[in-house]
Amino acid sequence: MDKRINNKTKENITIGPFPSSKKIYLKGEIFSDIRVPIRQIKLSKEAKPNVIHLYDTSGVYSEFKSNNDFNINLGLKKNRGKWIKKNKSIIKYRGRKITYKDNGFTKKSDKILHIFKKEKNVYKAKKSSSITQLYYAKKGIITPEMEYVAIRENESRKEKRKKIQKEGPPQIITPKYVMDEISRGRAIIPSNINHTELEPMIIGRNFYVKINANIGNSAITSDAINEVEKMVWAIRWGADTIMDLSTGKNIHNIREYIIRNCPVPLGTVPIYQALEKVESPEDLTWEVYRDTLIEQAEQGVDYFTIHAGVKLSHIPLTSKRTTGIVSRGGSIMAKWCLAHHKENFLYTKFKEICEIMRSYDVSFSLGDGLRPGSIADANDKAQFAELETLGELNKIAYKMDCQVMIEGPGHVPINLIKENVTKQLKICNEAPFYTLGPLTTDIAPAYDHITSAIGAAMIGWYGTAMLCYVTPKEHLGLPDKVDVKEGVVSYKIAAHAADLAKGHPGAKIRDDALSQARFEFRWQDQFNLSLDPEKAKSFHDETLPSEGAKVAQFCSMCGPKFCSMHITHDIRNYVKKGMKDMSKKYLDLNKYKTSKKITITKNRI
Amino acid sequence: MDKRINNKTKENITIGPFPSSKKIYLKGEIFSDIRVPIRQIKLSKEAKPNVIHLYDTSGVYSEFKSNNDFNINLGLKKNRGKWIKKNKSIIKYRGRKITYKDNGFTKKSDKILHIFKKEKNVYKAKKSSSITQLYYAKKGIITPEMEYVAIRENESRKEKRKKIQKEGPPQIITPKYVMDEISRGRAIIPSNINHTELEPMIIGRNFYVKINANIGNSAITSDAINEVEKMVWAIRWGADTIMDLSTGKNIHNIREYIIRNCPVPLGTVPIYQALEKVESPEDLTWEVYRDTLIEQAEQGVDYFTIHAGVKLSHIPLTSKRTTGIVSRGGSIMAKWCLAHHKENFLYTKFKEICEIMRSYDVSFSLGDGLRPGSIADANDKAQFAELETLGELNKIAYKMDCQVMIEGPGHVPINLIKENVTKQLKICNEAPFYTLGPLTTDIAPAYDHITSAIGAAMIGWYGTAMLCYVTPKEHLGLPDKVDVKEGVVSYKIAAHAADLAKGHPGAKIRDDALSQARFEFRWQDQFNLSLDPEKAKSFHDETLPSEGAKVAQFCSMCGPKFCSMHITHDIRNYVKKGMKDMSKKYLDLNKYKTSKKITITKNRI
Repeated sequence: MDKRINNKTKENITIGPFPSSKKIYLKGEIFSDIRVPIRQIKLSKEAKPNVIHLYDTSGVYSEFKSNNDFNINLGLKKNRGKWIKKNKSIIKYRGRKITYKDNGFTKKSDKILHIFKKEKNVYKAKKSSSITQLYYAKKGIITPEMEYVAIRENESRKEKRKKIQKEGPPQIITPKYVMDEISRGRAIIPSNINHTELEPMIIGRNFYVKINANIGNSAITSDAINEVEKMVWAIRWGADTIMDLSTGKNIHNIREYIIRNCPVPLGTVPIYQALEKVESPEDLTWEVYRDTLIEQAEQGVDYFTIHAGVKLSHIPLTSKRTTGIVSRGGSIMAKWCLAHHKENFLYTKFKEICEIMRSYDVSFSLGDGLRPGSIADANDKAQFAELETLGELNKIAYKMDCQVMIEGPGHVPINLIKENVTKQLKICNEAPFYTLGPLTTDIAPAYDHITSAIGAAMIGWYGTAMLCYVTPKEHLGLPDKVDVKEGVVSYKIAAHAADLAKGHPGAKIRDDALSQARFEFRWQDQFNLSLDPEKAKSFHDETLPSEGAKVAQFCSMCGPKFCSMHITHDIRNYVKKGMKDMSKKYLDLNKYKTSKKITITKNRI
Repeated sequence: MDKRINNKTKENITIGPFPSSKKIYLKGEIFSDIRVPIRQIKLSKEAKPNVIHLYDTSGVYSEFKSNNDFNINLGLKKNRGKWIKKNKSIIKYRGRKITYKDNGFTKKSDKILHIFKKEKNVYKAKKSSSITQLYYAKKGIITPEMEYVAIRENESRKEKRKKIQKEGPPQIITPKYVMDEISRGRAIIPSNINHTELEPMIIGRNFYVKINANIGNSAITSDAINEVEKMVWAIRWGADTIMDLSTGKNIHNIREYIIRNCPVPLGTVPIYQALEKVESPEDLTWEVYRDTLIEQAEQGVDYFTIHAGVKLSHIPLTSKRTTGIVSRGGSIMAKWCLAHHKENFLYTKFKEICEIMRSYDVSFSLGDGLRPGSIADANDKAQFAELETLGELNKIAYKMDCQVMIEGPGHVPINLIKENVTKQLKICNEAPFYTLGPLTTDIAPAYDHITSAIGAAMIGWYGTAMLCYVTPKEHLGLPDKVDVKEGVVSYKIAAHAADLAKGHPGAKIRDDALSQARFEFRWQDQFNLSLDPEKAKSFHDETLPSEGAKVAQFCSMCGPKFCSMHITHDIRNYVKKGMKDMSKKYLDLNKYKTSKKITITKNRI
C-alpha cells in the first residue's frame, strides 16, 4: 500500500496521491501555457488498457509529498494570473479596506487566531469594458479558460465517432464547442478574475455533471485552518465547486484562507455576511449588501447565490405550506420585504448587481428562496412563481454579459422531478440548473445523503448541470469531515450515474475498467479504480486480509465454491476446449428461438 | 429516552420497542381470530394528529421486554396453525427424515452447536388437492391470509376518496381486492403451510413496495443464533422478507432456527444446499435437487429462487460479456448444462417442481441467472432471452396454481431501467417483479447500497413489487450487522420514495407528519417518526446534546439567527398581526402577475 496516502501536513491538511495514481498535465494547443491536471491510474500488466485517466478535482494537494511543498499562509500558486495580466481590459486597483466589521466583530480589539496577509491591489474590468467569459463567447473569442475546460472534459480521450447521440455533446469537446455553449447561456465557467489560483471548470448540461460541497463554520465552531482542510478534503473526494456558507465571526478571514488555497470555484451567499453586519433582517440595506458584494468580489469569490426572485407578492403563496420558507436567504429577504412592505431590493437593484458581477466576472447562482422544504410543498405555486421571476432576471443578466445558473429544489417526490427540469430549461433559456438534491422523501433524517442521491441522479439525468450535495447531517446539525466525505461520494455516484444515463462519451470507461478488473479477480485494480479505494479495500480485508486473497478467485461474500465469476471462467474454458462448434450451434439455435414465438410441448417440460 | 430500546436477550437477540412506539393489533371482520400488528407512534400533545400508525415488519420481538418473554429454542407462537388445521384439503404426515448430509456433514459424528428440536409431522396438500392462495383466489374464495394482508396494507387508515388514481389501488384495500390481484397473478402471498409462525404479507405492484434482506452464514462464520439475530435485526429495520443464503455446514439446522423464529416470509435458493450435498455442479442431479426441495418445503420455506430460465441455448449469449454470469445459481446451472451437454433440469422438470411447490404453497421466485453484472452487460440478449423463458414458465406455474414472482437485474444504467419493467410486465403477464437493485454504476464498491438505492427507487416507481437490498459489502465480502442495517434502511428509503411517487394512498402520511414536526420544532417527534430514530437523535445531539435543545427553534446547522423555519414563523406572525388585508392584496396582485406575461420596465429593476 502506498504509504503516502492520507499524509497530513503540520496544519492537518490531507495530502498525497490516491493509490497507484499520479497527476499528469495536458498542454493547450491554442494557449501553450495551459496545463490541465488529469489523474492517471496505473493498473496491472494484464489489464487492457492498463492506464486509466480521470477528471481530477483534487488540486495540487494530491501531488504534495510533505510539509515543505506548500504553505497554507501563502496560498496556492497563481497560475491563472498571467492570463489576467495580459488582458488589456482589466486594471489593478487598491481594493476596499477591510475593517473589523467584515469579520463580524463589534470592536477593533477583537482578535482572531490566524490572519491571512491579503494583497491590497485587486483586479477589475475597466469602466465600460466587459471581461466575462460570456462576453468573449458572444464575440466568438476563445479564452484560455475555455481551452482549459475543453481539455479537462476530455480526460485525454481519443475520438472514436463524431457524435455519441443526436442531442448530446460531441465525443471530443473542443474549445469552440465550449465557447458556443457559453455564448448560448447554456454553460458557465465560474471564474472571478481575482481567483487566480483557479483550475477552471465548466458547468452545463452537455458536460460532465458537476457536484458542489457546502462547507463553512457556524457561530461556535471551527477556525480558518479547519475550513481549508474541509475544502481540501471535499475536492479530494470529487467536489467540483465549494460553497463557503460560514456565518458568525471571522468570516472574511476564513474566506480569504479558503480562496487563496482553493483550486476549484468558490461560491458564497453574500446575504449571510451582510446580515452579520447588522442586527436583524429588517436592518439590511442595499448599501450594506452592495458593500458586501464588492468585498467578496475583490476576494475572488466565483459565484454568488442571490435570492432576487423572492418577490413581495410571492410570500403569501407560502402561507399554507407545510414547511414555509426553508431557504435561509429566502426567509431573510421575505422578512425584509414584509417588515418594510417593499419589494425585495435584490430584485429592484438587479441591474446594479449585474454591473458589479460583470466587473469581476462573478457568476450568478440565482437562488431558489422559495424552494419546497417538504414533499407536501413540492412543485407548488410559490416555487414556480419564483422560477418565473428567475427566468426574467436571467434574461437581464445575460444581456449584461453575466454568467448565470439557476438554483433548484429541495424536496420533491420522484414523480414530480422531471417537471422541475422541463420548466427550468424553458423559463430560463436553458441556463445551467443547479439543484439541492432533491430529497425524494422526508422520513429519513440521518440518511438524507441517500434520500437525495436518488433525486440527484434522476434530475442529473433529466438535464441538471450541477448537484449540490446533502450530507447525513442535513436537518440535524453541522456536518463534520466524515459527513462531508459521505456527502461528496454519494453525489459523485449520483452525478456519474447521470453521466452514464446521458451517454456521456467518457463516463463508461471507468465502469468498464472496474468491471473487467472484478471479473478477472484483479482485486487491487478494482480497489484503485473505485471512488473510495481505501474503503473498498478495508471492507474486503475485514474477512480476507491476507495478501494472497488479493489474487484469489473469490471473496468472503460467496466463498470459492459459490463464486459465479469463478464458475464463468470454468464455463469459458469448457467452451474453448473444443466446444467451438457446439457454441456456434447454440447461437444458431437461439437465433431461431428468439425470432419465432416460443411454443411449449409437454415433452420438453 | 426509552430504556428498553435495543435490549438484548441472553442469546443476544435485539428486543424492545422503538421510542414512543407500541404495537397494537387490528382484528379481522371476516375471520374473527385475525390480529394484524401495527406500530403506533405517540407524538406530542400539540401534534395533529398526535398518533401515527405504521406498517410493522418487526414481529413480536419489538414487544418483548425481557428474556422471559420467549425462547429461541422453542420458536414463535404458531398463530397461523389454526387456519391450516381447519383446511380439510391439508393433511399432516411424517416428514422426510433429516440426515447428517442435510447439514453438509460427511459423517454422523460431526457435531453442531445448537440443534433445533423439530416436529416430525408436517403439513401437505391432499393428493390432487390444490391449497395455494392462487387456487383459492381463482375460485373466488377469501382466505384468512387475504384478509390479514388487506388490513395490514391499510395501517388503520380511514377512507377519504374511492380512488387515489386511475390505475392504482383503491384508498382502502379490501380482502376482495387482494383476492382479485392474486387471481390475476399480479400479487402473491408467500405462505408455506408449514410456516405457521408467519405474519402474512402481500407482494404486488398495487400494494406497498416491499424489500428483502439477504442473510446467511458462509462456509466459515456464524452459527444459528447469530443468523436468527441477523433476521430479527433486519425485520426490526423494515425488511419485509428474508432470504437465507447460507452455504457450508449446518445449513438445515440454521434454516430451522430461522424459520421457527421468523414472522416474515423466508426465501431460499435450494440449489445452494443441493450443491453442498454433492462435490461440484456437474454432479448435481434432479433427484438430489428434488429431495432438497421437499426437505425445505417441509421446513416451511415460503419461496424458492429457481433458475429454470437458464437454458443451454442462452449460455453462448454470455460469452462476450464483460462480467459473464454473475448469479451463483445461474452459473451453477450453466456449468451443469455445458458439462452434460443437456438442457437445464430445472427447465425440463419444471412441471414436477410445480407439483411440489403447490403441495405446500411455496411460491416461485423465478431466478434471473443471466442478469447483467455490470453496466456493460445491461439489457443484453442473454438477459432478455432468459426473461422470455421466465415468461413461458410463469404461464405453466400459473396454470398449476403456483404463486410466482420474477427476479430482475442487477447492474443497469438509469436510462435502461424502465425497459426492464416494461418487458417484464408484458412477457410475464404482470407477475410481481422482484429486482436486485439495480446498481446504476459499477465504480463505487463499498457504496453499492447507494448506487443501487437509486436504481431501486426508480424501478419501484416503474412498477417493481419487491426490491432485494444490496449492502455496502456487495462485491467485497459477507455483510455484518452494521451492513445489514445500512442496506435495509437504504432500501426502505427507496421503497418509500417509490410509494410516494406512485401515489400510494398511505405513503405521504408519515412524510407530512415528520415535516410538520420539523417545522414546529418538535424535535422528539421528528426523531420518533424517522426511519432510524436513534441515529437521527444522536446526529442532532452531537452538537446540541442538552434537553433544552429538543425544544429549541434551531439546530447547529444554521444556528438561531439563520434558521429559515424560525424566520418563517416570524413572517407568519407578522401576517397575522393585522396584515390580513395586505396579504389579500398580494394574492390578488400575484393572480394578476401569473396570468399575464411578465414585462420588465427599467424603473422596476
